[in-house]
Amino acid sequence: MEVKEITNRDTDFAKWYTDVCMKADLVDYSGVKGSMIIRPLGYAIWENMQSVMDRMFKETGHENVQMPMFIPESLLNVEKEHVAGFAPEVAWVTHGGSEKLEERMCVRPTSEVLFCEHYKKIIKTYRDLPKLYNQWCTIVRWEKTTRPFLRSREILWQEGHTMHRTSEEAMAETLRMFNVYKTFQEDYLAIPVITGKKTDKEKFAGAEVTYTIEAMMYDGYALQNGTSHYFGNHFADAFGIKFTDADNTLKVPYQTSWGASTRMIGAIIMVHGDDHGLVLPPKIAPTKVIIIPIGDVQDKLRELENNLKDNNITYKVDDSNKSPGYKFADAEVKGYPIRIELGKRDLENNNVTVVRRDTLEKQVIEYNNIIPTINELLEVIQKDMYERAKKRRDSMIYNANTYDELKDIAKNKPGFIKINWCGNEACENKIKEDTTLKSRCLIEDEEVTGNCVVCGKKAVTRLYIGKQY
Amino acid sequence: MEVKEITNRDTDFAKWYTDVCMKADLVDYSGVKGSMIIRPLGYAIWENMQSVMDRMFKETGHENVQMPMFIPESLLNVEKEHVAGFAPEVAWVTHGGSEKLEERMCVRPTSEVLFCEHYKKIIKTYRDLPKLYNQWCTIVRWEKTTRPFLRSREILWQEGHTMHRTSEEAMAETLRMFNVYKTFQEDYLAIPVITGKKTDKEKFAGAEVTYTIEAMMYDGYALQNGTSHYFGNHFADAFGIKFTDADNTLKVPYQTSWGASTRMIGAIIMVHGDDHGLVLPPKIAPTKVIIIPIGDVQDKLRELENNLKDNNITYKVDDSNKSPGYKFADAEVKGYPIRIELGKRDLENNNVTVVRRDTLEKQVIEYNNIIPTINELLEVIQKDMYERAKKRRDSMIYNANTYDELKDIAKNKPGFIKINWCGNEACENKIKEDTTLKSRCLIEDEEVTGNCVVCGKKAVTRLYIGKQY
Repeated sequence: MEVKEITNRDTDFAKWYTDVCMKADLVDYSGVKGSMIIRPLGYAIWENMQSVMDRMFKETGHENVQMPMFIPESLLNVEKEHVAGFAPEVAWVTHGGSEKLEERMCVRPTSEVLFCEHYKKIIKTYRDLPKLYNQWCTIVRWEKTTRPFLRSREILWQEGHTMHRTSEEAMAETLRMFNVYKTFQEDYLAIPVITGKKTDKEKFAGAEVTYTIEAMMYDGYALQNGTSHYFGNHFADAFGIKFTDADNTLKVPYQTSWGASTRMIGAIIMVHGDDHGLVLPPKIAPTKVIIIPIGDVQDKLRELENNLKDNNITYKVDDSNKSPGYKFADAEVKGYPIRIELGKRDLENNNVTVVRRDTLEKQVIEYNNIIPTINELLEVIQKDMYERAKKRRDSMIYNANTYDELKDIAKNKPGFIKINWCGNEACENKIKEDTTLKSRCLIEDEEVTGNCVVCGKKAVTRLYIGKQY
Repeated sequence: MEVKEITNRDTDFAKWYTDVCMKADLVDYSGVKGSMIIRPLGYAIWENMQSVMDRMFKETGHENVQMPMFIPESLLNVEKEHVAGFAPEVAWVTHGGSEKLEERMCVRPTSEVLFCEHYKKIIKTYRDLPKLYNQWCTIVRWEKTTRPFLRSREILWQEGHTMHRTSEEAMAETLRMFNVYKTFQEDYLAIPVITGKKTDKEKFAGAEVTYTIEAMMYDGYALQNGTSHYFGNHFADAFGIKFTDADNTLKVPYQTSWGASTRMIGAIIMVHGDDHGLVLPPKIAPTKVIIIPIGDVQDKLRELENNLKDNNITYKVDDSNKSPGYKFADAEVKGYPIRIELGKRDLENNNVTVVRRDTLEKQVIEYNNIIPTINELLEVIQKDMYERAKKRRDSMIYNANTYDELKDIAKNKPGFIKINWCGNEACENKIKEDTTLKSRCLIEDEEVTGNCVVCGKKAVTRLYIGKQY
């Protein structure tokens, strides 16, 4: 009896995704429309992400703070491009208790304006710079249609907001944190990413430059998984933030912001998951090993548990009253990197069965050799998951040299397409209209020769385009 | 020049408190009325609290989850006592973008109803019990007057919500987590606490029993620093939560909840702070040691830094362009447990000056002996801070045997008063009316002989009363 049946991934990817979210007990729907409940396994993955990223932020000199969650309407309105980008999708608080507020406030959709208001008070001289702050919090965007982790009215994320003496310093910070995201996603989530500048059309409301981390999902769609923005001094200007520089003149500081969210859990599911459910990269899996005892193996089980504890390997034991087959399926759907079948018969030969979640490969190994085997396997799985994802991604990146070719690939082959582009938003819009593909990011390390695939004018850049979540 | 002047603690305690909050850079006011900004030092203290408490929660079997931050009005209304307690002080979201919501939602003031709705879906049989969930999040209560950490519209906290098979199990959980709070506050915050049941009048809206952790501040006022509630099955009944027990009958589970918040930072300030500013208990201080170099001591400074790093002692160096006097005052206001004055002259004699923040005691020690000295001092400071706070608290607890005595103490002596009480709410109300003192908690380990100090009827319990924040 397969208790946790999951839709086939190639038959209906969207339904497969929801099945994995629900059947791996990552999330549950709530009675609050558009908001989800993050269950223990989903939240433990987020906690691991937080812990690694937070360490990386602190190692690069950042400090955590906590701003208010509300933004008065007049404050949101200070920077014009910014408010235009966010006002249509915020939740408005109009009453406190039984009283109507004098001014309504939105729940933060992002916190640039709150940080700017604070920076105005605490930045006086160049000695106060840089200010390198980060905040872990929940933001709210009033989405019409929602999907677990990918698009939700409430989003758990971190947002870094920094202020710098010079534009060069701010740009260096923008790129530094962009690289932190890249390293984190490649090294910990085993997700190969495509990175680069957003086009002007796709950049963050109020930013001068947006760098994006784009990952390709199993179905060829892009998921924007983290962005790092350079603001110049747009906001600082609008907020009247000034500092006295060493030369005793008043100057306006330069600003960045950067954010990544629980969306990355969606990426893990859609890059690594399979027809059996979730597959967690060992480095981010809250529990590395699931032990399934078969028959009366109590003594060896205790011994193994102590052994794992002593070696700092996280584990769980499934000692429920279910059948081994049910337990195997449940271990698979929940994505534990390694399953140990601790069976009476195996143990009589001093053996134990170990199963890799990523390949479902079984091996019978010597019981005494279990710790080194697990440690080695965890490393191999992490590496193989990355390589496998990269191979698949690379096989789904295409070149389109003409507009017909572009349309043909867009129609028939899921994935990203590389094109020559003139830099004109009209061409970007036409592609979107004809194919639903949007710009992912500029390709900065490829030589540009030839013409824009849309209008035929001289190309100024190479560009990734693709469908997106 | 004393740059960071702080009001004298005995002259104006309220102003002293605000001065410390602001001048130690713990918080800042924001343009959002009633909400504060938690600055890096304040937030780092909270992170340390979170990390210790989270470990204690996990060691007692709890898992973290994340519920929605919004509660639809109809959901808040399910449990009648609960909604009566909270509805007057919630923030209402009425619009998403430009659209009016069909049903308004409040920002969670606490999450019992959200957990109950989820538990109704996931609890089916006794094998699903207990459910031991906790959540770290921000809640909102629409307070009229606010003070940093003590009373704020936005509160960072954790809330545990658990479901159990039997009432005995739920009561054991209520007490277990109550003890976790007590241990945490005594062992880490160096705050001696007074603990016990709340009276019916003072218990949580919807609870059957509330256990409270009460700490006495320097001024004799009480701060309620954590509560643990036993709900019986009030909520479970109202939400229709049922499980099939081993005997195949349908039963209603028993529930607890427990919470503690950034309010504890306020307690640290008001229990340990002095006229020079914040005094942080070593075990919760984000930075144990502040180093102030005096003269050109670069080589020794690098050596000392490496030495501290190797010994996992967190430190900061004040290498700003300020005078030593300014730096000493700044180190004091921010409460670093130990200050090291690394001076050229001291070093010539192979010495270094070490200053305890709690007593401001200076000692010149051998440079080579610095790590053991610091490690020992950190332990001594932690212990002394607790003992000092306990001594002060104990000296401010009084017995009142008559109502006149009660009124006299209430008027002239700040602190807690122990009385005999008949258990009648009318007497509790009369005390509050005449003296502004409210019940803190029942005293369960003292014998009850004699009569209620208010009405003269037979006393059924001993009771702590006191003024409160």
